[in-house]
Amino acid sequence: MKAYILTIGDEILIGQVTDTNATYMAEALSVEGYEVVEHLSVADTRDGIRNGLDRALAAADIVLMTGGLGPTKDDITKKVLAEYVGTEMAFHQESWERLVKIYAGFGKEAGPHHREQCELPASATVITNKAGTAPGMWFEHKGKIIVSMPGVPYEMRYLVSKEIIPRLVAGNVDQSRQRSLTILTAGLGESTLAEAIEAVEDALPRHISLAYLPNLGTVRLRLTTRGTDETAMQAELTKYKDEIEAIVGQYVYGYGKEDLALAVQKKMQQDNLTLATAESCTGGSIARMITGHAGSSGHFRGSVVAYDNDVKSSVLGVSTELLAQHGAVSKEVVEAMAQNARQVLKSDYAVATSGIAGPGGGSDEKPVGTIWIAVAGPDGVKSKLLSSGKDRKRNITYTVHMALNLLMGQLQGK
Amino acid sequence: MKAYILTIGDEILIGQVTDTNATYMAEALSVEGYEVVEHLSVADTRDGIRNGLDRALAAADIVLMTGGLGPTKDDITKKVLAEYVGTEMAFHQESWERLVKIYAGFGKEAGPHHREQCELPASATVITNKAGTAPGMWFEHKGKIIVSMPGVPYEMRYLVSKEIIPRLVAGNVDQSRQRSLTILTAGLGESTLAEAIEAVEDALPRHISLAYLPNLGTVRLRLTTRGTDETAMQAELTKYKDEIEAIVGQYVYGYGKEDLALAVQKKMQQDNLTLATAESCTGGSIARMITGHAGSSGHFRGSVVAYDNDVKSSVLGVSTELLAQHGAVSKEVVEAMAQNARQVLKSDYAVATSGIAGPGGGSDEKPVGTIWIAVAGPDGVKSKLLSSGKDRKRNITYTVHMALNLLMGQLQGK
Repeated sequence: MKAYILTIGDEILIGQVTDTNATYMAEALSVEGYEVVEHLSVADTRDGIRNGLDRALAAADIVLMTGGLGPTKDDITKKVLAEYVGTEMAFHQESWERLVKIYAGFGKEAGPHHREQCELPASATVITNKAGTAPGMWFEHKGKIIVSMPGVPYEMRYLVSKEIIPRLVAGNVDQSRQRSLTILTAGLGESTLAEAIEAVEDALPRHISLAYLPNLGTVRLRLTTRGTDETAMQAELTKYKDEIEAIVGQYVYGYGKEDLALAVQKKMQQDNLTLATAESCTGGSIARMITGHAGSSGHFRGSVVAYDNDVKSSVLGVSTELLAQHGAVSKEVVEAMAQNARQVLKSDYAVATSGIAGPGGGSDEKPVGTIWIAVAGPDGVKSKLLSSGKDRKRNITYTVHMALNLLMGQLQGK
Repeated sequence: MKAYILTIGDEILIGQVTDTNATYMAEALSVEGYEVVEHLSVADTRDGIRNGLDRALAAADIVLMTGGLGPTKDDITKKVLAEYVGTEMAFHQESWERLVKIYAGFGKEAGPHHREQCELPASATVITNKAGTAPGMWFEHKGKIIVSMPGVPYEMRYLVSKEIIPRLVAGNVDQSRQRSLTILTAGLGESTLAEAIEAVEDALPRHISLAYLPNLGTVRLRLTTRGTDETAMQAELTKYKDEIEAIVGQYVYGYGKEDLALAVQKKMQQDNLTLATAESCTGGSIARMITGHAGSSGHFRGSVVAYDNDVKSSVLGVSTELLAQHGAVSKEVVEAMAQNARQVLKSDYAVATSGIAGPGGGSDEKPVGTIWIAVAGPDGVKSKLLSSGKDRKRNITYTVHMALNLLMGQLQGK
């Protein structure tokens, strides 16, 4: 069955916010086998929303839309929706009673703005939003389904995962599903990877596609198939995964939605090992990626973000002589940071970074993008020099990926 | 002039990647006064791309599109484009010579994949991509402009900022520009804010719009106007900004694209103050946000990410008695973390966090979402208890915002 994602908001059109809602809805629909045919973002205007609905309903059977249901005046979606499907606005008593109760819980009284929030299209099935105050609305219109949700990401996520997807799946007669298998690689560029596995790719049957998703030192390879027989689909995906891994297996660090930090977490917790980081140019980004995962406290001890050189010596115990002799961005200092972090934070392994992220701080000898990374472990220390570019954010992300990949290699004994 | 953003890629449609390219292009166009009418993401197929182009050219004068120009087999954009505008594919010698030179620089030889990358639509103006290997292409088609760029974000950013926008602006006869002024607030909810400034909003002239952009403890207020007279537009935006600030000024921390970390950076560097963080549940996210900004080394000393309680005592010197008596998630411990971080990292101010980010680790007494934050400074320590929700990512981001806002309040003497 075909699905369409329609997001509403001038803030998206002018580039003030990134449309992460579309990503979430797309993924939730795709894993259930819906074919998402397009994402469209339109203006907060009557014409914008109506044109978007026309396009969506011409292309798909189900439309998930977000935005424009909040209490403020730039939100007009529900009125346009009522007009579009040919219904009146009506006061929704149940929603009002819920709001009054919520605000009473905060010792506040629900005001006129909240009352207006309870004026809803009469033909809509109102879906209570337990993560917020503005409800979702489900319309059946000319044999198709339109679902409207608030644009606040975690409210939308609640409604999609707990309310909308279960209702869609329950009512879906189409048994065809789309299944993907994503192989995560680090350390090879997109072109090199493509040349290496060209023979596998050329021999893929027509109903299986292979996509390359490169991102700063990592490339995800996504195999996708469609069908009704779960076992056959899984067997087919596994067959081509195995063929790919027979060629580039040493660059594979994980599968699916994992990232390098989660792959490290699984490996370390399985082997009962602990980790620490000592970060200069990455400024806490490695620690953040690690601790973004639930359960990371099982292996992660902590980090010293030694942004100032003084912290490198006073907290991490890197000697001031070493710093003076080689400079902070050097093999010697980054290795000392990693080795000392193991001691200071009492971990089995430690990852360290020291580099010039930019835009300032570069010199002829050490231009912006000159970055040292190191991993210290029970068997000693290993370091690597990166030559990245001039973009600060890119340099930081690239360093995070390369440092975790260096660690992963050590853990796997490569 | 109207502009359209068209992004191509199944990875976007199935929700495997978020379309940050659309955000970047939208913002680059908007600040130059182009009205971005829609963003559309379509499939990597002939039909998908052709339908997208039809829609885009019906709605706008300029189409910026990304995706599908890489060396791998899932990339078909350029062939579909050639067919769409009615031209042949031709080998582009200049691009080939450039590729050969680039690969020679790495000691490699350009291969057949790279040769294929130089087959380009004959009627396109080829725009050299100094950030990568796949070039941009500029088409003039039936009085409209179509620009196709690679989907790798930093390559697209290079082409948009250095090549495409300058060419568009040079050729633009429409003098009308859109101008926005964004007021950044923290500490008030969207509804409360809307009620407080209702009178200002109601009195706005029709050509000025006000949008609310809430995000976990912060709300951005965006005033937008259109016109040709720069001075008049700025004066008008400033007038309404002043009216809003007269009411809710104490919640305003900055303007435009700043975030709380940059507002803190400006204030601290202006007052010659230094900062450190001691992070438990935020796991380095505050340090990362701070060090994401160029020039942060001017005030930021570093951080101790004390994820394990043992690190709280061994590195930050929080007494084990205090930890045993009150637990790590307590007013006493978070205040000690902040005060000790000032000493250990030798800073004027220190921010500390300790809480249960979830999904595990909660109890009846301290459920998931129970988070303590503290700020220590020359005048002592101030702490605050947050009751957030069950979502780990949301809890972390909310804590980062609230902790930096608590610091900002201290710096401003509120």
